[in-house]
Amino acid sequence: MSETNRTFLLANRPEGRPDRDTFELVEREVPDPGPGEALVRTLYLSVDPYMRGRMDDAESYAEPWAVGEPLRAGVVGEVVESNGAGFEPGDVVAGDLEWADYATAPGTDLQPVDPDLAPVSTALGVLGMPGRTAYFGTREVAQPGPGDTFVVTGAAGAVGSVAGQIAGLSGARVVGFAGSDEKVAFLEDELGFDAGINYKDTDDYRGALDEAAPEGVDAYFDNVGGPITDAVFSKLNVDARVAVCGQISLYNATEMPTGPRKLPTLVQKRARVEGFLIGDFATRFEQATRRLGRWISEGKIQYRETVTEGLENAPDAFLGLFEGENIGKQLVKVGERDA
Amino acid sequence: MSETNRTFLLANRPEGRPDRDTFELVEREVPDPGPGEALVRTLYLSVDPYMRGRMDDAESYAEPWAVGEPLRAGVVGEVVESNGAGFEPGDVVAGDLEWADYATAPGTDLQPVDPDLAPVSTALGVLGMPGRTAYFGTREVAQPGPGDTFVVTGAAGAVGSVAGQIAGLSGARVVGFAGSDEKVAFLEDELGFDAGINYKDTDDYRGALDEAAPEGVDAYFDNVGGPITDAVFSKLNVDARVAVCGQISLYNATEMPTGPRKLPTLVQKRARVEGFLIGDFATRFEQATRRLGRWISEGKIQYRETVTEGLENAPDAFLGLFEGENIGKQLVKVGERDA
Repeated sequence: MSETNRTFLLANRPEGRPDRDTFELVEREVPDPGPGEALVRTLYLSVDPYMRGRMDDAESYAEPWAVGEPLRAGVVGEVVESNGAGFEPGDVVAGDLEWADYATAPGTDLQPVDPDLAPVSTALGVLGMPGRTAYFGTREVAQPGPGDTFVVTGAAGAVGSVAGQIAGLSGARVVGFAGSDEKVAFLEDELGFDAGINYKDTDDYRGALDEAAPEGVDAYFDNVGGPITDAVFSKLNVDARVAVCGQISLYNATEMPTGPRKLPTLVQKRARVEGFLIGDFATRFEQATRRLGRWISEGKIQYRETVTEGLENAPDAFLGLFEGENIGKQLVKVGERDA
Repeated sequence: MSETNRTFLLANRPEGRPDRDTFELVEREVPDPGPGEALVRTLYLSVDPYMRGRMDDAESYAEPWAVGEPLRAGVVGEVVESNGAGFEPGDVVAGDLEWADYATAPGTDLQPVDPDLAPVSTALGVLGMPGRTAYFGTREVAQPGPGDTFVVTGAAGAVGSVAGQIAGLSGARVVGFAGSDEKVAFLEDELGFDAGINYKDTDDYRGALDEAAPEGVDAYFDNVGGPITDAVFSKLNVDARVAVCGQISLYNATEMPTGPRKLPTLVQKRARVEGFLIGDFATRFEQATRRLGRWISEGKIQYRETVTEGLENAPDAFLGLFEGENIGKQLVKVGERDA
């Protein structure tokens, strides 16, 4: 166990695509927990596409990260020391902590994780923010039902893979866009999608949808944006619902991206397009986690994790998200639980 | 009274902007009403922007008009002859008829118009389809409330002028875009809008909104689309609602119009964008008409009509819609009521 605390700082604000120089690794002392705080040793940290937005100094739903300050992340860790935080050493907790070996946080900002329920890493994936995002975005915003065709982009990712399976449980035909034949096989063979489309195999997304969604699209869960989304909009049925969760294809854009105007289509189809943020459903997180946990235990929802070993490799894990290198939830494994 | 029946046919499908050659005026015999039908003499006919879409042979919510066939329109007319249609000669009715002096229709397709309630022309405007469109699009889709800022484009038109006033009755600050100083004065002085913006006076729509909507935009009723809509989207507040009613700035486009991609904004703002068609609210038309009628009689809603005289000038009245020549509802006066 390291005695120093390796911590990644935001070295500078990236223009366009970030790279290794966006990150600076420093060694600091392990911090002492203040009153009411716990010291947490990181086991897993989560890298997520939305973090790209926090690197910019732009108005958004989340505060921008400050240059020279530690990067933050969803972390699952083990309590090392509790200064009246309401936890015992050895407890496993989840929280919004740092890209670091250790971090302190008020006990009230930490959620207990039950290691007997599921692998603790799932608290950052299918039983954490991505799973809840899929749950509410599908159920409350895209609203697929029996007889509907549901399309999801980023279908093999942490959110998309769960969204598609929930749509399937809802009785819909499920079509997913993903970026490799391996991912398409994962969708069709492991997750039970009705059809997967490898978008790197074709430019004719519309033609691919004509085949995979012959009755048009009733519900669309969009993680990607751009030309694939343009094609899906051209297939929307009357009264279609579009849940806009992410737009990863645009996150590194340095100029305002343009594309075909979509509002005329919305009138013709009386379609609804709605952006959502998972934080707006905070009062119902427990419902989502309980149901997802049950579906996993019943084998109705499958999940996969892509685990990068070592805190020092966290930037590569993050950058890989924009290359589509992960299947399922991308995690960084930083430490082992004490036996 | 003419003994022949002048009728406008669709001469050809326009590429881009229609012109006089799009229309062919023919003289035919006055038709005889079949069993259950009435013969109706046109008093007013309505020209509306959505008609541009019906001139194309493209899939849309309404059947394309056939080349060589009569153009159709909302008409208020007087029953000349009833062949078991359930009306008496002299009754005033409204229906979906033709650009013609006379037309026949089944009695079940005609709605009675009470000439004592309001000028019969209002059955094509504030008490007809445009008024109902404003009512449901504002109330059910854009949903302005007290403290909200509501923006409407095409604000001096048949739909926008009513939408803005309903938003005002709902307690919102009301901002309208229109295309002349005369129209802006109409909005501010006659309709009680909080601010009008003459979009032909500026290219800096965003700057104009910074002034007119300093607290951002909570509800947007869009009749126009294009760059004004881009500016409004840049001002949307969290949880904003956008009702997409029309996109007149794009109707004559010959290539797929492009513009800045808007879905990233929707995620940041958790905004909802929804297209709607008035036909989807058909079961509640009576509610809308009753309330609009009451508001007019109470002086809470003002309306204006731009009346072009003579059936032969109907094409010019229609083409003028795309030049923004009308204030309030654009009508064509075809005949007088029999005394």
